[in-house]
Amino acid sequence: MTMSEAAQTLDGWYCLHDFRSIDWSAWKTLTSDEQQAAIHEFLALVEKWEKTEAANKGSHAIYTIMGQKADIMFMILRPTMEELHEIETAINKTKLAEYLVPSYSYVSVVELSNYLPADAGDPYENPEIRRRLYPILPKTKHVCFYPMNKRRQGNDNWYMLSMEERRNLMRAHGMTGRKYAGKVVQIITGSVGFDDYEWGVTLFSDDVLQFKKLVYEMRFDEVSARFGEFGSFFVGNLLTKEKMYSFLHV
Amino acid sequence: MTMSEAAQTLDGWYCLHDFRSIDWSAWKTLTSDEQQAAIHEFLALVEKWEKTEAANKGSHAIYTIMGQKADIMFMILRPTMEELHEIETAINKTKLAEYLVPSYSYVSVVELSNYLPADAGDPYENPEIRRRLYPILPKTKHVCFYPMNKRRQGNDNWYMLSMEERRNLMRAHGMTGRKYAGKVVQIITGSVGFDDYEWGVTLFSDDVLQFKKLVYEMRFDEVSARFGEFGSFFVGNLLTKEKMYSFLHV
Amino acid sequence: MTMSEAAQTLDGWYCLHDFRSIDWSAWKTLTSDEQQAAIHEFLALVEKWEKTEAANKGSHAIYTIMGQKADIMFMILRPTMEELHEIETAINKTKLAEYLVPSYSYVSVVELSNYLPADAGDPYENPEIRRRLYPILPKTKHVCFYPMNKRRQGNDNWYMLSMEERRNLMRAHGMTGRKYAGKVVQIITGSVGFDDYEWGVTLFSDDVLQFKKLVYEMRFDEVSARFGEFGSFFVGNLLTKEKMYSFLHV
Amino acid sequence: MTMSEAAQTLDGWYCLHDFRSIDWSAWKTLTSDEQQAAIHEFLALVEKWEKTEAANKGSHAIYTIMGQKADIMFMILRPTMEELHEIETAINKTKLAEYLVPSYSYVSVVELSNYLPADAGDPYENPEIRRRLYPILPKTKHVCFYPMNKRRQGNDNWYMLSMEERRNLMRAHGMTGRKYAGKVVQIITGSVGFDDYEWGVTLFSDDVLQFKKLVYEMRFDEVSARFGEFGSFFVGNLLTKEKMYSFLHV
Amino acid sequence: MTMSEAAQTLDGWYCLHDFRSIDWSAWKTLTSDEQQAAIHEFLALVEKWEKTEAANKGSHAIYTIMGQKADIMFMILRPTMEELHEIETAINKTKLAEYLVPSYSYVSVVELSNYLPADAGDPYENPEIRRRLYPILPKTKHVCFYPMNKRRQGNDNWYMLSMEERRNLMRAHGMTGRKYAGKVVQIITGSVGFDDYEWGVTLFSDDVLQFKKLVYEMRFDEVSARFGEFGSFFVGNLLTKEKMYSFLHV
Repeated sequence: MTMSEAAQTLDGWYCLHDFRSIDWSAWKTLTSDEQQAAIHEFLALVEKWEKTEAANKGSHAIYTIMGQKADIMFMILRPTMEELHEIETAINKTKLAEYLVPSYSYVSVVELSNYLPADAGDPYENPEIRRRLYPILPKTKHVCFYPMNKRRQGNDNWYMLSMEERRNLMRAHGMTGRKYAGKVVQIITGSVGFDDYEWGVTLFSDDVLQFKKLVYEMRFDEVSARFGEFGSFFVGNLLTKEKMYSFLHV
Repeated sequence: MTMSEAAQTLDGWYCLHDFRSIDWSAWKTLTSDEQQAAIHEFLALVEKWEKTEAANKGSHAIYTIMGQKADIMFMILRPTMEELHEIETAINKTKLAEYLVPSYSYVSVVELSNYLPADAGDPYENPEIRRRLYPILPKTKHVCFYPMNKRRQGNDNWYMLSMEERRNLMRAHGMTGRKYAGKVVQIITGSVGFDDYEWGVTLFSDDVLQFKKLVYEMRFDEVSARFGEFGSFFVGNLLTKEKMYSFLHV
Repeated sequence: MTMSEAAQTLDGWYCLHDFRSIDWSAWKTLTSDEQQAAIHEFLALVEKWEKTEAANKGSHAIYTIMGQKADIMFMILRPTMEELHEIETAINKTKLAEYLVPSYSYVSVVELSNYLPADAGDPYENPEIRRRLYPILPKTKHVCFYPMNKRRQGNDNWYMLSMEERRNLMRAHGMTGRKYAGKVVQIITGSVGFDDYEWGVTLFSDDVLQFKKLVYEMRFDEVSARFGEFGSFFVGNLLTKEKMYSFLHV
Repeated sequence: MTMSEAAQTLDGWYCLHDFRSIDWSAWKTLTSDEQQAAIHEFLALVEKWEKTEAANKGSHAIYTIMGQKADIMFMILRPTMEELHEIETAINKTKLAEYLVPSYSYVSVVELSNYLPADAGDPYENPEIRRRLYPILPKTKHVCFYPMNKRRQGNDNWYMLSMEERRNLMRAHGMTGRKYAGKVVQIITGSVGFDDYEWGVTLFSDDVLQFKKLVYEMRFDEVSARFGEFGSFFVGNLLTKEKMYSFLHV
Repeated sequence: MTMSEAAQTLDGWYCLHDFRSIDWSAWKTLTSDEQQAAIHEFLALVEKWEKTEAANKGSHAIYTIMGQKADIMFMILRPTMEELHEIETAINKTKLAEYLVPSYSYVSVVELSNYLPADAGDPYENPEIRRRLYPILPKTKHVCFYPMNKRRQGNDNWYMLSMEERRNLMRAHGMTGRKYAGKVVQIITGSVGFDDYEWGVTLFSDDVLQFKKLVYEMRFDEVSARFGEFGSFFVGNLLTKEKMYSFLHV
């Protein structure tokens, strides 16, 4: 098994995380009717996304974000970068977007790692793998997102380990993750060559405390303890279409 | 005792630290009456928080902050992330908030560490533990807040230590803290998976110099000297409802 | 072979990467006619660039960029820094530029490294080398740009290696790159003394996933694993003159 | 001698360094009369500070700052954090402050280190020590300010040294400082628990070049070479009340 | 030879690098006559600088800067910090400055290092040394500026080396520089105690590529490879008074 085999991944839908902060002062200058119209126009866009999701041609999730890093997160999955860009542009052109200040974004692609056991046949034809590469995002009460790198520092250099070492470290790490099956859904997206970290991790759960338990427990896995480098953490609550009106009502 | 046991914590109320700077130039464009109305509206919100606190369903603290990092800090504790988000949104929708520029925030949950001696029975039923997980925040003259990580760097990697080593280091650290009993109240909130550092530390005291003495003395504890990584430090003075009028009067 | 021989490179056209974000809110305040006029004026500038390219006196590429880092990237190649600056200034003076907020830029020069086998005769007269030093940029569907350094840290200090060691590491790295021949076109530009990183890497491909595969596979090469330090990654889609109208139409 | 003895310091007046940049464009929109009135109002505040200083109940210094980091620095000493905050708020409420953009601030307390020889009796009653804990700031032609940490990195971990080692390193360092007696006045303020670095250093001299000579020479002391981590450096010229008018006159 | 001897330098004129970006959108709101008047007023200031230079009482250089870091760089040399500050303030008070957004600045003093052979007599009376301490800046076609530190990290700690080791490393480095004599003029300014890095390096050349060749070749010198830490690099083209009109004409 060569180094280059080590670099093979399975890649699914492209993914955009788009975080925005609300400019409440400006938003309040609108009349109530203007606000309603802006929300209405925006939800029409969301309804188009829902049709795409129903047709299994993409997926999306909308959450409010805790704290000042952002107020809303859109997570969008699509088969091509061009479609993702069209959606980003469509958001930018809405009336509501005039009151949504961009605060962070992340560009990636749904990824299954090469540390899975090798399989007979084309993995892209395997229904279980397809379900994970082209996932319909859960609509759990809470979401958690963070980008991460594998460290390359002195003796803690992930990319200088052998395939065997990496596989073993990932297997132990996977067992920690498996304890949270049924409590947390984890979507890994790869972003090498696409954005500033190597991976994005998006967690979904109805119990927000499970995010802390999972991430904290994993930090003791050698793969995180020695090799994990983490960016900003975003945590938030589901924003349904119905809640959008009350959330934005001033 | 396994690694995963090492990762167990007791978790209480969710916590939002919300720091804002006053836009004095814009605030001054208001008439005195408009300013009074804005403060009045804001204090009505604070009175709701006081009722929640009286009912033991949450707690809060409001402090001015020294220097240019922020002018006001709101620290809010609530049983759910949803309630915290409602409060954040309620603040954002006030008239006063149009003159409060967001400058920093921190999302966490009150946490008791697993380095405490194991206990018979459900710790969440223990009244002493409950008092610490669901604390009513003191209204001391001064506050100090800072986020922190445990380092993972070369030979100073906290997460690669054994449970035994970590327990011993934390015990010595706890003894330093205990010297300040009666002088400083310390609230530890965990933020792994919620925000960019692993913990938030909020200190309360009537003698602001005790913050410096405590943090400086602790820095010589091996757990801080070798493993502590600190974010920004915020220090401030109690902002009572009465002082709000004179503080904001221009 | 001395250290100073190690420092010799072949240098071609000067290069400016200019990233801008669209201020959609301001742009929307223009009437449709004003928008058309602004786009028209801008495309007249692009047509001048096309004439320069047709005359083989420079080249350019225009791409939209995914996510919030930027909305548009202009990559411009010219024989002199003065010409590059004139183009930068010409962009700045357009009407459209009033709605394009600068977000990042990179100044460099097309470079062929000294790790190539020595050649008889003046390399600047070699047609194959000239083609690479003065390239006409491909108009592929996708682009990827990132700046990078060679690390100088403890035992991982690229500039303390012998010429022989560096040559061997680069040769292995080159072989990884060669696997992507026909799939990805790679333009290396040197920026020591010109900008904050030592090199800029611009990749062109019709298959955006090849960027991820190439950069990820290369990360396992020792030269990247131990010595590569990477800045921000930008990825985007071709923006033709025709698409400019629909992209900017609100 | 225990670690905790090592952590004892003598603490005097609280200290705020407040750096501001002038918004010249906005300032110019005022009429000459309005400018005069704004300066006049501000100087009335300064005159109050002068009375406090004359009564030995605090001190202050006002300097212009070179370069774009800031235009003016206010350094204020007071017996309590509350008084410091009142002054900060009083500055913010002036007309002039509408044209002074906050650019940096530092919160600390005048500190004498525990590396001084132990003394019989209460040091806070010692007149020489009192003069240093509650200093009247010199009005030299030039000022230099920078915050700093003691490093905790690998083998260069200040807080893991013994009291004896730290005392010896500080003694040698003190001897370097003593060479500049009569040329440079040095005020050390401690900021552990108050601001992002552990100490602030403020230097006063009539010969600006002495700052460079002193800081450069000290960098060769082992305590700086191995353990010093420095923040931003600010250097500036005395701003007397008289100069304020010509400085701000447009 | 003691450590403190190692810290002696020869210091000449004080130096301000002042980088500004043009706010083209605001600038365009002026009428052509207003623009002409603003440029005219500014050039009157430059003419005063020219008189100072002709009288050998200071020097200056004005360059456009490539990319988005800045549009214009003013480099000013004067005998005192007070004079430098007056010039900075005079720039700020011009009409043109309302359209020049500050983007970076650097405060330093022309410095000759102590690694030169010791000399008989007062070096400040030596005409050759005076010429280098009080230089008339060349008006070459191109400029390059970057600030830098000597590293203090683990085994790569410049300030822990002996005088002998430092002298040898600098001598080898000087020989690399000497190869570029006649092609590149190098002005070293010291900024310890004045600004965030320890030195500023300003290079002047009629051939912009020589900057890249010089800096890249020097990076292989042990003194740079192991001990050099570099800030941002700025590169640009000469901006004569004549060019100012066409550059700013919209």
